[in-house]
Amino acid sequence: MTFAWQLARRADRMNPSIIREILKVTERPGILSLAGGLPSPDTFPAEAMRVAADKVLREAPREALQYAASEGYAPLREWVAEHLGRQGMAVSPGQVLITTGSQQGLDLCGRLLLDAGSRVLVETPTYLGALQAFAPNEPQVDEVASDDDGPVPEALAEATTRGGDRARFLYVLPNFQNPSGRCMSEARRAALVDAAQAAGLPLLEDNPYGDLWFDTPPAPTLASRWAEGTVYLGSFSKVLAPGLRLGYVVAPSALYPKLLQAKQAADLHTPVFNQRLVHEVIREGFLDTHVPTIRARYAKHRDAMETALRRHLPSGCHWTSPQGGMFFWLTLPSEIDSLALLPLAVEAGVAFVPGAAFYARTPQANTLRLSFVTLAPEQIERAVALLGGVLKDVLARTPVLTP
Amino acid sequence: MTFAWQLARRADRMNPSIIREILKVTERPGILSLAGGLPSPDTFPAEAMRVAADKVLREAPREALQYAASEGYAPLREWVAEHLGRQGMAVSPGQVLITTGSQQGLDLCGRLLLDAGSRVLVETPTYLGALQAFAPNEPQVDEVASDDDGPVPEALAEATTRGGDRARFLYVLPNFQNPSGRCMSEARRAALVDAAQAAGLPLLEDNPYGDLWFDTPPAPTLASRWAEGTVYLGSFSKVLAPGLRLGYVVAPSALYPKLLQAKQAADLHTPVFNQRLVHEVIREGFLDTHVPTIRARYAKHRDAMETALRRHLPSGCHWTSPQGGMFFWLTLPSEIDSLALLPLAVEAGVAFVPGAAFYARTPQANTLRLSFVTLAPEQIERAVALLGGVLKDVLARTPVLTP
Repeated sequence: MTFAWQLARRADRMNPSIIREILKVTERPGILSLAGGLPSPDTFPAEAMRVAADKVLREAPREALQYAASEGYAPLREWVAEHLGRQGMAVSPGQVLITTGSQQGLDLCGRLLLDAGSRVLVETPTYLGALQAFAPNEPQVDEVASDDDGPVPEALAEATTRGGDRARFLYVLPNFQNPSGRCMSEARRAALVDAAQAAGLPLLEDNPYGDLWFDTPPAPTLASRWAEGTVYLGSFSKVLAPGLRLGYVVAPSALYPKLLQAKQAADLHTPVFNQRLVHEVIREGFLDTHVPTIRARYAKHRDAMETALRRHLPSGCHWTSPQGGMFFWLTLPSEIDSLALLPLAVEAGVAFVPGAAFYARTPQANTLRLSFVTLAPEQIERAVALLGGVLKDVLARTPVLTP
Repeated sequence: MTFAWQLARRADRMNPSIIREILKVTERPGILSLAGGLPSPDTFPAEAMRVAADKVLREAPREALQYAASEGYAPLREWVAEHLGRQGMAVSPGQVLITTGSQQGLDLCGRLLLDAGSRVLVETPTYLGALQAFAPNEPQVDEVASDDDGPVPEALAEATTRGGDRARFLYVLPNFQNPSGRCMSEARRAALVDAAQAAGLPLLEDNPYGDLWFDTPPAPTLASRWAEGTVYLGSFSKVLAPGLRLGYVVAPSALYPKLLQAKQAADLHTPVFNQRLVHEVIREGFLDTHVPTIRARYAKHRDAMETALRRHLPSGCHWTSPQGGMFFWLTLPSEIDSLALLPLAVEAGVAFVPGAAFYARTPQANTLRLSFVTLAPEQIERAVALLGGVLKDVLARTPVLTP
């Protein structure tokens, strides 16, 4: 007789990542994938890591390999506070919690702030991984009307109190958003924070891509405008390497102790070897020279994709050229469902992520996300040409509704 | 005006680790601490790690530093399956989920199996970290009567159905338990699994210390007797190094997909650099020669503590010499509360963990845990002498109740 496990109710809310399922299909040899959000491995500073790993394991093996503080490695917490300070945020090291990637930051914040049935607000579209992180807490996820500049401040008051149940926070990714690539203007940031303060709505600000600007840095963070009402998430994944799983949360002091307890319960602490390794790499200003090389590289990739899109996409497709980050967001002619398009594209040898995956409630079916950082520029040209061909085929076969 | 955060209800159940709070006090210079459960850093294979880190970062930097599969690094999953196979468990690599320490395994299992108010069974005493991992799910934690051989099988049926609400699982640590040091006999394992199967009660088997036996290996795991009803947790923390945060879950195939989704939501994946590093260290049989050196070292420490306890502790104190693992569990004369004893001990220069921390419901106040692996044997002698002195002082001042 097979034993029957009884699962927690929240298990119904856990689902495989659509992106990861797509990636499985698209990792077949020969597929040019614009789907994954993988940083270019050419940017990983392997040699600096190797030298630093050697140094850490020679000089402090007993500390680097032992259990450590749940808060994180003190010099790394100090580095983060100082780094953010240079960007206009007043952060004390005591507010910094080192996490196992910023995905864990999302998870811990969800656990600390969301009850079953409580409301959480997100942008449209929004980062899929955040929806996954929040889901096990069984919240009701509500969308805030958003435009090319991010969430619309005027929509915040109503969204906060909709249905009589106050939303617990707004999850927002202001810089080169995943998936839309958009970056909030300074005016929008000011208006959004004003609206959030007026509505008594805390903010969960996610900033994995902020350092990846091409021409000008983004405006100051939301946290710099409203420190006590904002939890800020940062990451080393996009400026160093994601495989080390190293991120951080900056939390108001009212929240920090409980966040720390959630962290202890989750994995005791983030691998201290990784923390010391990264600190050794960055302590003398490595990122000051390294990050500009990533920016220059990704700007070229962005240019290659912009050129290819203009060359190969049929009329009726729209996008805004991103000013940083890793993604183009395409709006296709309204009769095209990108989810139905995907198998045809994969057959032709190119993959993307259908936009529907990034909407909490009301998917916009004629959208899709393209990463411009994983493939080389000449591969991008080829991949976009394939995508353009598939789109033209589909449009030729789609009956045009005459008015 | 200070912004007021609304926390999730589960935040009330999150509390600072008593052990970590004690450790803060006892990490003052000059305190001989028998409190922490820290492996001896003399056992960390720093040189092998250094060589392996160098190799991984030279030969596979792009893979070691990139995002990776949530399941874990395939060759490491295969190693785990093969390693457990040699211990009599039939495990396929597809059942192995690599976790960020086995604390994360506890967390994921709690999230997947526990609803608010649902019942979970634990031993008396039990591992404090497991109680912390389960707490955010707001379960009702019930104790199963236990003796020197672990949970009493005859108590299982009633405990499973107590109050009409079926317990979701029994959390059990059969090998050299933290905190009691006890190791379940083969007969007890057989009887416990029979009782669990009869009661339809799944098992969560935690085995961080099973390789640390001194004279004879422990009997086969519970999972080897009842694979489909048992989730098994393993760890590299005690045989290699805890600072890498590397553990694993072996789950029945009925449970694996949801466990994987919970893992994705929690931190995407465990640092793949750490996984490749450890696999590189252990792939050619390193543990076959390394683990025996840890056993020999810890056996000497155990002997030193046994000798010191016999020499310095007043009559009325009881313990069983552990046959493996890291801990002695002391039962003091019944009039002594070890929590009240701790400040006196710290004042004298020695620290321990009061036993009350390890009970889910009904603390036994006259117990305490001593780690024998962190201090050197001569420090153990000195520390136990100090503890004995404090105990004798307290007993001399405690009025003896005459019958």
